[in-house]
Amino acid sequence: NIRNLGMEKVADTIVFPCKYQTNGCLSNLVHKNKLEHEDCCDFRPYMCPCPGASCKWQGSLENVMQHLWLAHKSITTLQGEDIVFLATDITLLGAVDWVMMQSCFGHHFMLVLEKQEQQFFAIVQLIGSRQQAEKFVYRLELNGSKRRLTWESTPKSIHDGIQQAILLSDCLVFDGATALLFSENGNLAINVTVSIG
Amino acid sequence: NIRNLGMEKVADTIVFPCKYQTNGCLSNLVHKNKLEHEDCCDFRPYMCPCPGASCKWQGSLENVMQHLWLAHKSITTLQGEDIVFLATDITLLGAVDWVMMQSCFGHHFMLVLEKQEQQFFAIVQLIGSRQQAEKFVYRLELNGSKRRLTWESTPKSIHDGIQQAILLSDCLVFDGATALLFSENGNLAINVTVSIG
Ligand SMILES: [Zn+2]
Ligand SMILES: [Zn+2]
Ligand SMILES: [Zn+2]
Ligand SMILES: [Zn+2]
Repeated sequence: NIRNLGMEKVADTIVFPCKYQTNGCLSNLVHKNKLEHEDCCDFRPYMCPCPGASCKWQGSLENVMQHLWLAHKSITTLQGEDIVFLATDITLLGAVDWVMMQSCFGHHFMLVLEKQEQQFFAIVQLIGSRQQAEKFVYRLELNGSKRRLTWESTPKSIHDGIQQAILLSDCLVFDGATALLFSENGNLAINVTVSIG
Repeated sequence: NIRNLGMEKVADTIVFPCKYQTNGCLSNLVHKNKLEHEDCCDFRPYMCPCPGASCKWQGSLENVMQHLWLAHKSITTLQGEDIVFLATDITLLGAVDWVMMQSCFGHHFMLVLEKQEQQFFAIVQLIGSRQQAEKFVYRLELNGSKRRLTWESTPKSIHDGIQQAILLSDCLVFDGATALLFSENGNLAINVTVSIG
């Protein structure tokens, strides 16, 4: 039916502005590409990078650090490419998060240790875009008596967040028994090293 | 009661020969130390180091390699300090073991990858005594696209075996999701490096 084919071809060429046009996005997209673009659009607002669902803040990348300083004052920041993330009381029951900031190379990185039942997930994300994050490599080390466990990877951007990575075990994953091997008096020290990839 | 104290003091000084005297052990022990000694006695027979409970072989250390060559012919041996242990079909259900031998530094090492439900355990043991094993260090690496997981430790002696270490997560431990991240077409390559500690 010639008339229907014609209608389909017209529909394929209709473009719609990205929903983040008001934030500055200049892209126009055909219907079938719109959702996928909006998912990774640079102008999509940034959510608060702190783990847990309680903080509903969102804004532009430029305002994230100020939000952390104002609304999340208790997060420790360490300076340097090679630091120690000390997670205290790791035997606490239930779901727990330990969070820290690391400043180096003119950037801020957020280190998260998440405990879910008997599994631990440790990951690093950059307060920055995905393109910026791709430039770095992070290394997490658990050091014990004649034992070492190491994870090396590219930091996630806070734009993508860490929940998907944790779901896919795309980070340092270890169980309660391993934590016991490496901890001292219920505290676990994780060596975190950031370098240019 | 003076007479009872006397009896206790006599009992404390009675020594018994180690149960492995016929294998060459010259130790004599007071009752309370006997079991602990026999557990780590150098003259305790060596069990077959292959994982799984089916092989009941036991003998002296000198005869272990010959037993492996005669009764476990299908185990691959690779030469060198730095080799690749390729575990095929890691998505197989149930409890599975992959076994390999690595020859270097004039010694034989047994590499075991064990799958229990959704967890994997990878470990290296030396065909040798505990004193010999203490001299070495082994490293296991999973390498992926911009990701690396590494475990470094002292090999166990086959005299102690690997079951206790696996129970305590004293080895490389990873889950199904991690295995998926690092595998290709259902096969997982583990880089194994042995060095002098
Ligand atoms: Zn857009
Ligand atoms: Zn917040
Ligand atoms: Zn003995
Ligand atoms: Zn056997």
